[in-house]
Amino acid sequence: QNNEIRKSAMDSTSSSNNPVTQQPSTSQLLNLSERIDLNFLFRSSVEYPRGSSDQGAVKMNEARIELTGDIIQDLSFRIRYRLNRSFAPNSLDNAPSAVDHANITYRFGNEKKWHLTAGKQAANVGSWEFDTNPTFEYQYTDFVNKQLNLFLLAMEIGYQVTPNHSFQLQVHNTYNQDFNTVFNSTGYARNGLRPSKTPLGLYVSWQGNLLDKKWQTFYSYNIAQFAKGKTDHGVAIGNKLVLDRFNAYLDLQSAYMSVDYPNIGSPAVNNYLAPFPIFAPTFLQDINYKTAVLRVDYEFVPKWFITAKGFYETASLRKNSEIGDDFRENIGYWAGLEFKPVGSQDMRLFANYFYNTSRYHNAVANTNPNQKLHLFAVGVLYFVNVF
Amino acid sequence: QNNEIRKSAMDSTSSSNNPVTQQPSTSQLLNLSERIDLNFLFRSSVEYPRGSSDQGAVKMNEARIELTGDIIQDLSFRIRYRLNRSFAPNSLDNAPSAVDHANITYRFGNEKKWHLTAGKQAANVGSWEFDTNPTFEYQYTDFVNKQLNLFLLAMEIGYQVTPNHSFQLQVHNTYNQDFNTVFNSTGYARNGLRPSKTPLGLYVSWQGNLLDKKWQTFYSYNIAQFAKGKTDHGVAIGNKLVLDRFNAYLDLQSAYMSVDYPNIGSPAVNNYLAPFPIFAPTFLQDINYKTAVLRVDYEFVPKWFITAKGFYETASLRKNSEIGDDFRENIGYWAGLEFKPVGSQDMRLFANYFYNTSRYHNAVANTNPNQKLHLFAVGVLYFVNVF
Amino acid sequence: QNNEIRKSAMDSTSSSNNPVTQQPSTSQLLNLSERIDLNFLFRSSVEYPRGSSDQGAVKMNEARIELTGDIIQDLSFRIRYRLNRSFAPNSLDNAPSAVDHANITYRFGNEKKWHLTAGKQAANVGSWEFDTNPTFEYQYTDFVNKQLNLFLLAMEIGYQVTPNHSFQLQVHNTYNQDFNTVFNSTGYARNGLRPSKTPLGLYVSWQGNLLDKKWQTFYSYNIAQFAKGKTDHGVAIGNKLVLDRFNAYLDLQSAYMSVDYPNIGSPAVNNYLAPFPIFAPTFLQDINYKTAVLRVDYEFVPKWFITAKGFYETASLRKNSEIGDDFRENIGYWAGLEFKPVGSQDMRLFANYFYNTSRYHNAVANTNPNQKLHLFAVGVLYFVNVF
Repeated sequence: QNNEIRKSAMDSTSSSNNPVTQQPSTSQLLNLSERIDLNFLFRSSVEYPRGSSDQGAVKMNEARIELTGDIIQDLSFRIRYRLNRSFAPNSLDNAPSAVDHANITYRFGNEKKWHLTAGKQAANVGSWEFDTNPTFEYQYTDFVNKQLNLFLLAMEIGYQVTPNHSFQLQVHNTYNQDFNTVFNSTGYARNGLRPSKTPLGLYVSWQGNLLDKKWQTFYSYNIAQFAKGKTDHGVAIGNKLVLDRFNAYLDLQSAYMSVDYPNIGSPAVNNYLAPFPIFAPTFLQDINYKTAVLRVDYEFVPKWFITAKGFYETASLRKNSEIGDDFRENIGYWAGLEFKPVGSQDMRLFANYFYNTSRYHNAVANTNPNQKLHLFAVGVLYFVNVF
Repeated sequence: QNNEIRKSAMDSTSSSNNPVTQQPSTSQLLNLSERIDLNFLFRSSVEYPRGSSDQGAVKMNEARIELTGDIIQDLSFRIRYRLNRSFAPNSLDNAPSAVDHANITYRFGNEKKWHLTAGKQAANVGSWEFDTNPTFEYQYTDFVNKQLNLFLLAMEIGYQVTPNHSFQLQVHNTYNQDFNTVFNSTGYARNGLRPSKTPLGLYVSWQGNLLDKKWQTFYSYNIAQFAKGKTDHGVAIGNKLVLDRFNAYLDLQSAYMSVDYPNIGSPAVNNYLAPFPIFAPTFLQDINYKTAVLRVDYEFVPKWFITAKGFYETASLRKNSEIGDDFRENIGYWAGLEFKPVGSQDMRLFANYFYNTSRYHNAVANTNPNQKLHLFAVGVLYFVNVF
Repeated sequence: QNNEIRKSAMDSTSSSNNPVTQQPSTSQLLNLSERIDLNFLFRSSVEYPRGSSDQGAVKMNEARIELTGDIIQDLSFRIRYRLNRSFAPNSLDNAPSAVDHANITYRFGNEKKWHLTAGKQAANVGSWEFDTNPTFEYQYTDFVNKQLNLFLLAMEIGYQVTPNHSFQLQVHNTYNQDFNTVFNSTGYARNGLRPSKTPLGLYVSWQGNLLDKKWQTFYSYNIAQFAKGKTDHGVAIGNKLVLDRFNAYLDLQSAYMSVDYPNIGSPAVNNYLAPFPIFAPTFLQDINYKTAVLRVDYEFVPKWFITAKGFYETASLRKNSEIGDDFRENIGYWAGLEFKPVGSQDMRLFANYFYNTSRYHNAVANTNPNQKLHLFAVGVLYFVNVF
């Protein structure tokens, strides 16, 4: 940088009050691409839906840019954003939906075993499905797609107990929009609910490697509040098996939502109650969600992979015996083939078939027809490590 | 990257299921700026319109960021986006208007003469006007500005026949919005039109170098569908002359649109038909568009350039003899001066004058007054190759 | 870059008409991180508001990306944008609110003492408060937050008289939206105001270093027009004291607004006039704004800082004796503690308390209750120099 000029063209980053430019040493410079990673996450496919009125099209399934790195041993940062989401800020956290990560990590303490991560980050939930890079995860459960608040403002404290075991505490915003925005966007009645003054939550999680890293665990418990006096709980148990040419994960979760902000089960019950007098649509209260999801990947000959995934999800309203257990089921599976022509690069040509159905039972069955989607896709994915 | 820490702060890109980080070798590292290009496309000018009610202003004409490069010999990527467009995704392709390019190219076959490009990319249309970097192209024809779907999701297969001749096939989305969005945004009547299940198109193109690269050709044919059973055709013939201090291109195009989605000629006819009973505004059917555009650039003394451009475009509705041939003409030209003070850098100070008029003839002449624009601009452009 | 391939995959940046890629030399390459800076501006905190109905939350206070550098000795560029603002363009300048800087600087003349900066840039206003990098400035006056048009399209000419003194002339757009958009977004009556054909302004500014750089001055005068025949004037006097472990700035400003487009004082007067017959809300005319702001920073023990800021602002309507002088006061202060654990890096852990009140006097006092905000924040900031 030509400092003479920066001085003469002084503006809002040139204040000498807060000297902001640190010159990296020559050795740091030579290690640029070891210290810093710039990634481009890409997936595009031709999608043909069947059994729906959607038009077939070439889709940009994934396009995200990631910049991450270690500035010095104690400090690192991570930025990742999608190229296909608005950057307008959400009402509660002042961060946009486009940004997945915008955070820094400070490592401290004995042998730097502690870390603090502040800023927008991934929810520390025990889900290998969510943990997988989105480049490679073609379709998601409702648990990841709708139920979780995936990327949120938080402060995380972590401790590495041994090389194979770590624990984290993550204090986070429950939602990214404020209470009024959430209600106004659905038009739902509030039924006496009021905003919590501290709409925060806490993830407690454990990540472990067992059996020589063949079995990897990611378990979490979450407690959160959004409406005053209404508390949500969730448990997620993620297990991964990593062998030479075979990988699999099995994630199980169960959540109690005091108020159904994800709005997965509420529409069906609102449809059912609509004909009743003096009824106004609203978020259900005291709903239970459960998910089981299994994915397997197998390299059956070099460079060729079979991938398959299946999931089963339920919504239950136990306090109402008419609606009751499993009033909504969400079932999906895919099977696909991948070809990875260049050994050193994570570029794959793929073809797969996805089937998804939502079914309604008990009292809500008559007013809510089952939903079906067949989707056939052929395309390309590539996790590009630019440097 | 500090892998110990990435492990302890595990999140959605750290899965060992899909190892995603490839460490470049030292030799790759030293070649970073040979492998990768980071560009900033910039043009800003003070614009004074005359003959209109617009306010004069300093404009940000162009601000785009481009990141492109070869990861290995077989694989390259390209990202380019505008800093002044929304990143909200379009309804059909899930990609935003801000993104011009988000694609990867895989080269394969004997001597790597074949390539596959997937993702958002430029339409492979035989137009040197569109092919010119937008940093340098001050004003466009309606052909480029409105008629073409410039940047679209596609899968392209190309073959390099000889060093001087190549052919491409590009399967692409016809439009980036879905059928219903296109009609809803205009409020036009559908007149029985229904969405195609496969609203795709195909470009077939040839690029050639003749006469020791002095004459460069870019010819294309396009066939596409958007409404069911309605097929569009277009031919574009681009010719470029490249001499020492003189360049010119002459592009000719003719297109038959079964439905006038670009909505260039329809407003005039809708205005004309408005007084008729039982008339609802709609997209015209069976419209023909033609364009001729010539640009010349001449370095008359070292570092000083004269640039001039002229275009003539017509819209015709032959099946209706009252409206008929050339019912709309769009005529424009500019003349300007450029000064390039630093030989090694594509930075130019410029001044130019642009005149544009749209004229209406035949039956629609009375209801559609001619439009005129005079624009005087003084400014700076710079194609910055950061590294 | 593999030029063979770029040729075969020709598209809109590959035209040989305008050869756009300059290969840096090996020596330039080795100096990449000396020539180019990539920065990530970050601040996040847990904020608890008191005395308001707002919800507490973890906030993304700042997230901006900056890329800036010298391409050659004569030419540099600067891009900075926020990750939490929309990229949709404004109506007058075609640039989005998300972009702070998108400009180039060309240095010329004897010893390169002259420069021209074109594009979106910071207003050259004599305000050390605004000049401070936003990473480090927790809360702002209404002067910076609302009254100024901070980032605008402009052409700036500067001259470095001596190493310690420089002068700048900056011709700029008065506002980023056009006249009609400004009125339509408020719904205010125009009261006969018409758009200026040249809604431009001019900053004249001096930056100086005195007393061995211990005293730094930034003085500016501004004249601007937006409505036809209505001219605004402003003077800003910024003084900064830079000692070893103590910094302070004192900024004073006074502005006469022929029309109150910033809309700071107008709502109070509109509330007051609302009951009168035949009244329509509008922008006040002939309003005066004054601001005094003082910030001090003191490193009281190594790595620990005390920071405090106070400001006092008034709005006056002198032509109306009932509303009169100082009819609105805006008063604020904060006090905070910062800890900077890593000497070489501008990362700080902070806690602070901010109080802000707006009070109304004279005729408008009864219809405008005083506003109060208490805000307690604990968080992290980091100006990351990636390379």
